[in-house]
Amino acid sequence: MRIILDIYGGDNSPYAPIDGAIEFLSLCTDESVHVVLCGDEKLIADYLTKKHVKSDRIEILHAPDEVTCHDEPTSVLRAKPESSMVKGIRTVADKEADGIVSAGSTGALFATSISRVKRIPGIARPCLPTEVPNLKGGYTLLCDSGANANCTPEFLLQFAQLGTCYMRAMHGIENPSVGLVCNGTEDEKGNELTREAHKLLAESDKINFAGNVEARELFSGDTDVFVCDGFTGNVMLKTIEGSIKTFGKMLKDEITSSLISKLGGLFIKKSIGRLKKRFDYREVGGVAILGLRGCVIKAHGSSNSRAFCMALMQAKNMIEKDVAGEVAKELSIGD
Amino acid sequence: MRIILDIYGGDNSPYAPIDGAIEFLSLCTDESVHVVLCGDEKLIADYLTKKHVKSDRIEILHAPDEVTCHDEPTSVLRAKPESSMVKGIRTVADKEADGIVSAGSTGALFATSISRVKRIPGIARPCLPTEVPNLKGGYTLLCDSGANANCTPEFLLQFAQLGTCYMRAMHGIENPSVGLVCNGTEDEKGNELTREAHKLLAESDKINFAGNVEARELFSGDTDVFVCDGFTGNVMLKTIEGSIKTFGKMLKDEITSSLISKLGGLFIKKSIGRLKKRFDYREVGGVAILGLRGCVIKAHGSSNSRAFCMALMQAKNMIEKDVAGEVAKELSIGD
Repeated sequence: MRIILDIYGGDNSPYAPIDGAIEFLSLCTDESVHVVLCGDEKLIADYLTKKHVKSDRIEILHAPDEVTCHDEPTSVLRAKPESSMVKGIRTVADKEADGIVSAGSTGALFATSISRVKRIPGIARPCLPTEVPNLKGGYTLLCDSGANANCTPEFLLQFAQLGTCYMRAMHGIENPSVGLVCNGTEDEKGNELTREAHKLLAESDKINFAGNVEARELFSGDTDVFVCDGFTGNVMLKTIEGSIKTFGKMLKDEITSSLISKLGGLFIKKSIGRLKKRFDYREVGGVAILGLRGCVIKAHGSSNSRAFCMALMQAKNMIEKDVAGEVAKELSIGD
Repeated sequence: MRIILDIYGGDNSPYAPIDGAIEFLSLCTDESVHVVLCGDEKLIADYLTKKHVKSDRIEILHAPDEVTCHDEPTSVLRAKPESSMVKGIRTVADKEADGIVSAGSTGALFATSISRVKRIPGIARPCLPTEVPNLKGGYTLLCDSGANANCTPEFLLQFAQLGTCYMRAMHGIENPSVGLVCNGTEDEKGNELTREAHKLLAESDKINFAGNVEARELFSGDTDVFVCDGFTGNVMLKTIEGSIKTFGKMLKDEITSSLISKLGGLFIKKSIGRLKKRFDYREVGGVAILGLRGCVIKAHGSSNSRAFCMALMQAKNMIEKDVAGEVAKELSIGD
């Protein structure tokens, strides 16, 4: 197995990805798994030498150029053929690698992947599903979590099917329950989009539809997949981020406001550390672009080496469990 | 000043509202402020006698019937003329009271208020603005927070104007900044609705537009009004509710997992209590229906007596500050 790691495009590029690859290979003892670092050959070689890393499981794919957030997503393919993102994606499309991890621009990664790796036949829009930790100790899938700001009811039905395949293949849940994010649980609630989508989801025999769900239930673990348009999903993720950060900040302020609570704060420091880790996106890895014929993982823009390591781990899992193949088996309408 | 309190429609009706009114009158020492309890006359009189409450600032408006969540919102007016909600709203519409607080069905309250109290001329859709506590110690207005699931760009512009009037009148902020909730801060981000709304907001000289804002910034206090459609606003509020509850639950589990952190937990108990209070909707009171010719406050369905007390306080403030009059002055396009 060969996984490409795009060393450019992240806030901590190019060294955090390389460190992440080194950490990943130390954790993943399967000798057949190789990481292909994609970026400037000399820069990578020099850094590996400096770090005294010598492994035949690390390969280098020379790509001198990089995609930035200022590049127009749909023109990257033609405008930057020598960029690490484009060369990496081409390699996956040509079946010379099994998957790619990149922290570069979501829009560019999405557009280039669709254009080169291609969609599974019958999939109108690939989506970005995010795994959110729940109170049962598992993860709930939020799908779409940001790729498709404008959706039709048919897209939402496909997200439900894609999410179902993902949870079955990745987490072994045989018949994942699917909820439609809504402003109330009653069937007649919703906006125009969700009311139409509700009908499609209720009629589908390919999913286990649990009806409308409210955003506050995302963490309960009672429903496995939360389906929504990418605008709503993005707003939900960012609301969670803001809420947790704000609650944490206010808690800290409260605790440091008196001597006795300060003392208490010292005693629970470890507890808070463990909790932060559960909500830390760096521990989750990246987010797969679901609905493609190959494995493409978007790592968070501010990923550190640990996050790149976990994103590589996720890529390895997705490739081993052949998520793309499972989706094709379930949803493909003929090639 | 006379404020009507609908004693039916809430989870803790009919006694929590009556207790809330008693608490409110003990806090509000202005003798000219009266509360009109609207519901079954005998039930109210008996309860007041039992509680040994005798005050000429408590009046009773007999209404034997009640609106339930099973009633079709738009037919309540004709179907339940003797209900506390309908009789209360009629009294406000007839200018025999200055405002009403009700924990009854949002849809019914909305429809009946629009039909009887009426919109300010030029207002297409009244909205429900929610005050969210921010890190600067103040409140940020989320507008609309649930009343209008389907919106046009023009509605969003009006929500921005309504929110501006509200923050100016209620919080004395001369020129409140307005952000448009979006999946990114760049101007070109958004879905079809927000992209069109962005243009309208940017062109308006009646608001202080700060551009697109991300949901995670809701708590920062940097922007005074967050504008969005009611579906998105509802999802945001429920995501906050779920996040805070989940973080609190996980924190508790972590703290009780070891003896030392349990001890720490005891020391910070008061801190957590204060924090919970800041996020407690019962301390905020209710949510005004903005854009009407009078003061109508929706109290949370699960309000306890404290919440009804705070909702009455909010009604008193809105009436004193003549928020409806200020909106009419700013936005009315002729009667």
